[in-house]
Amino acid sequence: MITLTTDFGLSAPYVGEMKVAILRVNPTARLVDVTHSVTRHSVLEGSFVMEQVVKYSPPGTVHVGVIDPGVGTERKAVIIEGEQWLVLPDNGLATLPLKHMNARRAWEIDFERIRSFTGWRISSTFHGRDIFGPAGALLERGVSPEAFAHEIPLESLIKLDIEPKKEYDLWILKVIYIDDFGNVILNLENYGKPREVEFPDFGLRIPYCEAYGYVKPGELLALPGSHDYLEIAVNQGNAAERLDLRVGDEVRVKLVQ
Amino acid sequence: MITLTTDFGLSAPYVGEMKVAILRVNPTARLVDVTHSVTRHSVLEGSFVMEQVVKYSPPGTVHVGVIDPGVGTERKAVIIEGEQWLVLPDNGLATLPLKHMNARRAWEIDFERIRSFTGWRISSTFHGRDIFGPAGALLERGVSPEAFAHEIPLESLIKLDIEPKKEYDLWILKVIYIDDFGNVILNLENYGKPREVEFPDFGLRIPYCEAYGYVKPGELLALPGSHDYLEIAVNQGNAAERLDLRVGDEVRVKLVQ
Amino acid sequence: MITLTTDFGLSAPYVGEMKVAILRVNPTARLVDVTHSVTRHSVLEGSFVMEQVVKYSPPGTVHVGVIDPGVGTERKAVIIEGEQWLVLPDNGLATLPLKHMNARRAWEIDFERIRSFTGWRISSTFHGRDIFGPAGALLERGVSPEAFAHEIPLESLIKLDIEPKKEYDLWILKVIYIDDFGNVILNLENYGKPREVEFPDFGLRIPYCEAYGYVKPGELLALPGSHDYLEIAVNQGNAAERLDLRVGDEVRVKLVQ
Repeated sequence: MITLTTDFGLSAPYVGEMKVAILRVNPTARLVDVTHSVTRHSVLEGSFVMEQVVKYSPPGTVHVGVIDPGVGTERKAVIIEGEQWLVLPDNGLATLPLKHMNARRAWEIDFERIRSFTGWRISSTFHGRDIFGPAGALLERGVSPEAFAHEIPLESLIKLDIEPKKEYDLWILKVIYIDDFGNVILNLENYGKPREVEFPDFGLRIPYCEAYGYVKPGELLALPGSHDYLEIAVNQGNAAERLDLRVGDEVRVKLVQ
Repeated sequence: MITLTTDFGLSAPYVGEMKVAILRVNPTARLVDVTHSVTRHSVLEGSFVMEQVVKYSPPGTVHVGVIDPGVGTERKAVIIEGEQWLVLPDNGLATLPLKHMNARRAWEIDFERIRSFTGWRISSTFHGRDIFGPAGALLERGVSPEAFAHEIPLESLIKLDIEPKKEYDLWILKVIYIDDFGNVILNLENYGKPREVEFPDFGLRIPYCEAYGYVKPGELLALPGSHDYLEIAVNQGNAAERLDLRVGDEVRVKLVQ
Repeated sequence: MITLTTDFGLSAPYVGEMKVAILRVNPTARLVDVTHSVTRHSVLEGSFVMEQVVKYSPPGTVHVGVIDPGVGTERKAVIIEGEQWLVLPDNGLATLPLKHMNARRAWEIDFERIRSFTGWRISSTFHGRDIFGPAGALLERGVSPEAFAHEIPLESLIKLDIEPKKEYDLWILKVIYIDDFGNVILNLENYGKPREVEFPDFGLRIPYCEAYGYVKPGELLALPGSHDYLEIAVNQGNAAERLDLRVGDEVRVKLVQ
């Protein structure tokens, strides 16, 4: 199985080109579209999406992620080997999925060697079709990364700074994702079970509940969500609009027991 | 084959999570995305979409539908067994597909028993990934519903009220679907072949034709559509905007022979 | 493998209906969604999308394209046979993919004969489900087009007028595609490697570079793109908006060596 997560959008031919390129290299690959609508160039958002999918994927799954603002520059194209595989640009996109796959080794893809498998010219603007897709196709076919990549230290991979910070009882968090419904997801896990959540900057204190329906329509709540991170929502409403938050914004939070 | 119809949207990880969860339970399942863009929480719209797909699916197909405003509440997660299978929340979503599948039995899914197949925690907000998807995966694998569900009476299933009503020669109809082109679909089938269709509330009388091109661009027409229901359209235009109609609206109609 | 390129949109049941109809005729077909978001009725845009996918597809691939403003009228439903297969309305959609597939023969689909394979009524508004999808399914299954179509001359196929024109050193080009990022693609290939590109009508002269990053954010550039056509872009911006261009617009260009 090869999963595909990109910011290509759905109206362009890019997604189709990447898929047929994969199937040309590996005609029996099973392709799973995760999303092609990650906000353009949002590496953090893409990292969150890939993390959720890695958590529920069977061992051996190959995850191809292409959110790649640096395409055509010096950034590396890498493979990460663990219980599952990641194939993506080395720009921090691997940060969150890496938490769930017991990574053992990392590899940098050699463009000329992968071209010897595909046979077509490598463009400077579309590595999803020319590099990442074919690399995923080869891995899924059982080809060793040694055939088209060289090992690099796992520690050399670029990481996003998404560790939550704490000053006394105040958490300094970051919005790592906002879904289509406007639910806001913060970078805090394993925070116990607070009674309420306070936002000093908004002068707000909201209840922490198990599901949206525990507060009235239109009311704010905090909840565990389906992804283990702290989530802020409005029942039948849009929390991101209400609080004017965007991915990457800092949010200061107190958990009230 | 497992078809997937949801209101999850296409930018979130939810669709991807549900798909990899299904393939983890059933690695050889063939997944068919119908749509993930049903209007959020619109059970009627989702029911129409699932009906169209059921009508053209081969026997044995498993249809997973997740338009589920009541997730995390007491609503049942059900399986309907017939020539094809439905796996969905018991909130009326089954109403229209049920017309085409000779349903024989209904089952309520037991959360703890399905968890023994998946192994992961059942969230209170994402039953597509945790309940419906895995249940569909098991059925497609040939596992009997008895293994993770108990039988309930077919008659106990919740139904939407979408029978057309008639007062003398006046049909009191409901908008059951509006497509991307603004074509308006009404809940009337087997209505013969009228010459014209009259809308007393709009002071309108429009021709009934076989295809859009039979009237001039910009003109209203009624037609049989591709789904057997009465459809109202504007040739190369948007009938829903023209008549200010939304899914669920009531429309009074006279058929003129 | 069967690729699918349509303007059906993603919220309607149409895509799902076409897919299950294909799988009913050919249960083992591998379906690849290219896009269902071609601008409604834009045959030129669809032709460009299909061309890109044909260029990277393996031999034997069946490409089903349904951008079909003339559905229900006298336009032909055709098959084009070469190293790959095209199945589409005869309205010019084949123009650009035809450049890459060594077409040998063309066929017109007979509606009554294809109906004998599917068994269901052929609607007058949805030939994707009733004609094109099933025809692609049969071809992928190895059924000869003779079984449900009759041969027509390759030369009789309708073509779009997309040859670039030249007056002295002035190219008179056409916008054949605008992608989600606003990059503008013109119908000029094999134009060498200019130093700059001049647009007399805009009083503009912009650099020709290998990739977006060679100019500052917000600046215009011309580049080879990933598709061999001349592309106009704004680094991290939207060239179509900047120059107010739409698919089909004429653009006059001088290449400066």
